Amino acid sequence: MIRVAVVGYGYWGPNLVRNYQEAKGTELVSVCDLDPSQIKKVQIRYPSVKTTCDFHDILNDPLVDAISIATPVATHHSLAMKALAAGKHLLVEKPLAGRYQDAIEMLEEAERRKLVLMVDHTFPYTGAVRKIKELVDSDELGEIYYYYDSVRVNLGLFQRDVSVIWDLAVHDLSIIEYLFPQSPSAVSATGMAHFRDQPENVAYLTLFWERNFVAHVNVNWLAPVKIRQTLIGGGKKMVVYDDLEFTEKIKVYDKGISVTENEEEIYKRRIGYRIGDMWAPVLDRTEALARLVEHFAACVEGREQPITTGASGARIVRIMEAATESLTKRGQVIKL
Amino acid sequence: MIRVAVVGYGYWGPNLVRNYQEAKGTELVSVCDLDPSQIKKVQIRYPSVKTTCDFHDILNDPLVDAISIATPVATHHSLAMKALAAGKHLLVEKPLAGRYQDAIEMLEEAERRKLVLMVDHTFPYTGAVRKIKELVDSDELGEIYYYYDSVRVNLGLFQRDVSVIWDLAVHDLSIIEYLFPQSPSAVSATGMAHFRDQPENVAYLTLFWERNFVAHVNVNWLAPVKIRQTLIGGGKKMVVYDDLEFTEKIKVYDKGISVTENEEEIYKRRIGYRIGDMWAPVLDRTEALARLVEHFAACVEGREQPITTGASGARIVRIMEAATESLTKRGQVIKL
Amino acid sequence: MIRVAVVGYGYWGPNLVRNYQEAKGTELVSVCDLDPSQIKKVQIRYPSVKTTCDFHDILNDPLVDAISIATPVATHHSLAMKALAAGKHLLVEKPLAGRYQDAIEMLEEAERRKLVLMVDHTFPYTGAVRKIKELVDSDELGEIYYYYDSVRVNLGLFQRDVSVIWDLAVHDLSIIEYLFPQSPSAVSATGMAHFRDQPENVAYLTLFWERNFVAHVNVNWLAPVKIRQTLIGGGKKMVVYDDLEFTEKIKVYDKGISVTENEEEIYKRRIGYRIGDMWAPVLDRTEALARLVEHFAACVEGREQPITTGASGARIVRIMEAATESLTKRGQVIKL
Amino acid sequence: MIRVAVVGYGYWGPNLVRNYQEAKGTELVSVCDLDPSQIKKVQIRYPSVKTTCDFHDILNDPLVDAISIATPVATHHSLAMKALAAGKHLLVEKPLAGRYQDAIEMLEEAERRKLVLMVDHTFPYTGAVRKIKELVDSDELGEIYYYYDSVRVNLGLFQRDVSVIWDLAVHDLSIIEYLFPQSPSAVSATGMAHFRDQPENVAYLTLFWERNFVAHVNVNWLAPVKIRQTLIGGGKKMVVYDDLEFTEKIKVYDKGISVTENEEEIYKRRIGYRIGDMWAPVLDRTEALARLVEHFAACVEGREQPITTGASGARIVRIMEAATESLTKRGQVIKL
Repeated sequence: MIRVAVVGYGYWGPNLVRNYQEAKGTELVSVCDLDPSQIKKVQIRYPSVKTTCDFHDILNDPLVDAISIATPVATHHSLAMKALAAGKHLLVEKPLAGRYQDAIEMLEEAERRKLVLMVDHTFPYTGAVRKIKELVDSDELGEIYYYYDSVRVNLGLFQRDVSVIWDLAVHDLSIIEYLFPQSPSAVSATGMAHFRDQPENVAYLTLFWERNFVAHVNVNWLAPVKIRQTLIGGGKKMVVYDDLEFTEKIKVYDKGISVTENEEEIYKRRIGYRIGDMWAPVLDRTEALARLVEHFAACVEGREQPITTGASGARIVRIMEAATESLTKRGQVIKL
Repeated sequence: MIRVAVVGYGYWGPNLVRNYQEAKGTELVSVCDLDPSQIKKVQIRYPSVKTTCDFHDILNDPLVDAISIATPVATHHSLAMKALAAGKHLLVEKPLAGRYQDAIEMLEEAERRKLVLMVDHTFPYTGAVRKIKELVDSDELGEIYYYYDSVRVNLGLFQRDVSVIWDLAVHDLSIIEYLFPQSPSAVSATGMAHFRDQPENVAYLTLFWERNFVAHVNVNWLAPVKIRQTLIGGGKKMVVYDDLEFTEKIKVYDKGISVTENEEEIYKRRIGYRIGDMWAPVLDRTEALARLVEHFAACVEGREQPITTGASGARIVRIMEAATESLTKRGQVIKL
Repeated sequence: MIRVAVVGYGYWGPNLVRNYQEAKGTELVSVCDLDPSQIKKVQIRYPSVKTTCDFHDILNDPLVDAISIATPVATHHSLAMKALAAGKHLLVEKPLAGRYQDAIEMLEEAERRKLVLMVDHTFPYTGAVRKIKELVDSDELGEIYYYYDSVRVNLGLFQRDVSVIWDLAVHDLSIIEYLFPQSPSAVSATGMAHFRDQPENVAYLTLFWERNFVAHVNVNWLAPVKIRQTLIGGGKKMVVYDDLEFTEKIKVYDKGISVTENEEEIYKRRIGYRIGDMWAPVLDRTEALARLVEHFAACVEGREQPITTGASGARIVRIMEAATESLTKRGQVIKL
Repeated sequence: MIRVAVVGYGYWGPNLVRNYQEAKGTELVSVCDLDPSQIKKVQIRYPSVKTTCDFHDILNDPLVDAISIATPVATHHSLAMKALAAGKHLLVEKPLAGRYQDAIEMLEEAERRKLVLMVDHTFPYTGAVRKIKELVDSDELGEIYYYYDSVRVNLGLFQRDVSVIWDLAVHDLSIIEYLFPQSPSAVSATGMAHFRDQPENVAYLTLFWERNFVAHVNVNWLAPVKIRQTLIGGGKKMVVYDDLEFTEKIKVYDKGISVTENEEEIYKRRIGYRIGDMWAPVLDRTEALARLVEHFAACVEGREQPITTGASGARIVRIMEAATESLTKRGQVIKL
């Protein structure tokens, strides 16, 4: 059982608070937000939890083992450095930091103090992504050829300070980071800001690896419909992951291609549309965040090794920095 | 009524032959193919049509007003130049040529001889794309922000000599060429060839314009499912065009975004998922190729102006050439 | 502002409690449940609300204006009669009662005491069903020919004491009751109980009216997938209502049929697949139960007239009684 | 190789002609239609085939081994009796006859003369229905609990002389007949004719068996969308068969229900939505009619036993007669 404080009770904070409250491995000690009206909501819903508008109350509270930061990105580095200095373990809302350099400093500080630093990327904790990880690791898909992701938010919130890459592509990058042990070696990105003084609202990223593998991520804040569809092409099988499907989120297609010299066979494939069966495995439906907070507690207590480590969070920030640079250069490849 | 010969009776030729046979404005005079076994099929199905394995028979036939070329891309230029020299009007299967320089020569020759040179891009003749054209031209969508296209062939045929760009992206480029009067000013492309000695089988293209408009095209020969989905975002309305839908191929969403300073309104949008109605207009279901051959006849007879002109076909070849170059340079932008 | 007590904190009670707590027009005074462990949950989540295991505490509480009953059907009549005798207004969970006779007694008692008696059918309070009501009332659909409903629960809970008709068809009957002013004149039902000592788990109901209108309802507890689809055929337009769609729940098809003598036109229709446009109106997404509890408060205060009246609830019970009888007689029509 | 004549070149005849022409086991000898304009179409498309407007030419042609009848239902009996008398084997378009008594006479005549009499129900020859048959026969689904079918034609052709039962439900009945060895023992049907002097355009059939199995069929000519969906519930697994899906027509759900006394487990099921995996087997995509005509040839030559026998066709006619009677009596059960 670890004792946790949540800092930031805006969009994501209430989800963290609810999960810390209900998790077996965590005890929610206090909640901090600068805005008194947000704090009031906490008091009504959770009368037994301590509340404060002053972050130092959290830092100084000896009952707090760990802090969960859910404030705007720009504040992550400063808050995290103080929390680590106060000896608190950390779970930081994604993205880990607004700059790679900041993320590295946070990592080093945590390592020096032997504190757990994790980042709150939730997708690796979903039943769907965990199932894909199983399929990849067991070589059921064969050699992976491509990862293709298309995310459209149905008229998403235009954020003031960060582009659609930092808001949406960050999720896809966390899945890629989780699924594939090797990191990409380069990135090319294109995109556009359609509104004056606003960040880019559409972006297209291509990630390159040393080996024969490519990932492509499409994100869009200005879409008429919501789409969250991923295709993973392997030498043996291929996966379609549609996160908006209620139950059959993962479909595994027993299809493949072999480079044949037999002309007739090639022709037949052109007009045939399925070769083998399709299979939709049953998925664990536990809420990802519930799984994450239990895992965070286990990591703090040394019972488990972190999945979404600070280091992985930092690598993702680095990719987003490079993608942002490439985007301003209309797709010029940036080495990582 | 124009009299037509079809050259090439492989994958696409039979569709042309059938449509020339059934069209009111055309009379199918003869069919030419190098392969006698293909010619035999024509003889059985269309006993009254002349057949030959020798292209010169077509060139020398005074009964032939126009030639429809449906042979491999590499042969387009050579066959077309001979046909124009023989005074025949031309409809050339897409892409118009394998090289921009060749396409330009074909254009100039046709112009010099005052012959019609058209390219067989069929999408602009579908009810769906024509309806989108109407919506764009009437300003119903408002200023167009982006055109996003995702095409996946379900285990498509790997072609020996051309990449997936020349096989699939060519369709999307023909739609873009048709819908938007201005041509793109630059292109960036990424992609990959997963099999040794084979051309690229996945590709991602971004097209840039002088104005604030971006197009992105994703094509893939190695997909587990078939997808043909296009999103067009406008300032007033947005369109989802799903060519695999049987009837409701076009959905028009009465949605838009305005850059508001009102924080609360922004927040509400984030969690709301539809703002206005959706509307799926009824579409003309005439076969695109039937419409195209009638239009070709009308153009030869001077009654209509070509839609898929040789010039538009040449511009598309140019974009594909530039995209292919960018792809080998991992996304480096190429000016057009 | 009315003061409400909720009786029964099992499956549905928590939803009622949450909505009474959040509604502007209601004040949640107390919650009653026979099971102390359920009461404990209330105490943790809502520390300021009174709780009791004794129904009489509610009856005797002068602070309680109205009672919301969410107990098993078999107890509705007895609890309701006591509550009315104690002068409390009532909102009773659906179905209103287990027998028509009981429902009538409840109605009469409420009328005698001039108390509001409503039944908690939520579908008429959804944005989707309200929109259909608008379309029907404004004659936009023309004369209504049929109402067809298909509801499948994905491996639904087999209930001990009531058949699938009382669990699922009750919803469809409440929609029919709301949409169409006239009541059906007869019912025929078929179905089957596949498990020994269990009630019917599949049922098919046909409702007849005096006029040329038919409704058919299909319900099933033992289905591999979840389906909730309704078709409404009108002389001018037709509606497809799919409650599992996230946003486009209602699609209005501008289609119709006219009895023509023109043979050729009939033939064309056979092979044509859409005649007019389709339109998906934007829907109000307010939670149905939130709307219902506000409406209940307004009815108690005399500001609104009840929509889901006790009388409508009684008519629905009567239809279900007749359907159950018909079902045991393999579809024999029962007059209403 | 059998030699076949097709009688009737209206809606279905051209499909038969094309398949007999292309099948390896059949030789198309001649085509007969009363309408000279239809005959002309045959002459243009198939110049080598004999044509006639006089049925007697077919009867008297010693080169004709078998006749394929594709004329209106009302003529089936008379034409079939003459053809059998002339010693011709028969494939009759569905339904076999307009009256059960007629069908029986045809059966008896064929048996007396030792001629093959088959009915042209195509669904049992599709890859999808054949796969379901495999699943049923191998007990992979376990004991079958229900068969539920919903067919909606998108504004179907209103036929003058037969109701929607004879036009659409006939298909479902042929699948049921094929899948399940035992015949139903009773039928109840409801429905309605919405247009004066027109037959019923919506109908709902329930079939009963001696054992604990029920089938329900819903057909509708007046629908805004096309639907062809079947659910088959078994004790071990369940099937969803959606004929409008392009590739994944058959989905097998590894789900089931067992009557448990464990309250907690029941509750969990209520809120859980999938229990086991889903599996979509790859299907044979051969055209059903191509398979049928080859099978017909094999049956005439004694190499195979008929699947869609005249006897099965007669049983289907009997069910439709009984359903029509039940429909006029508003669902009264009719024994078979």
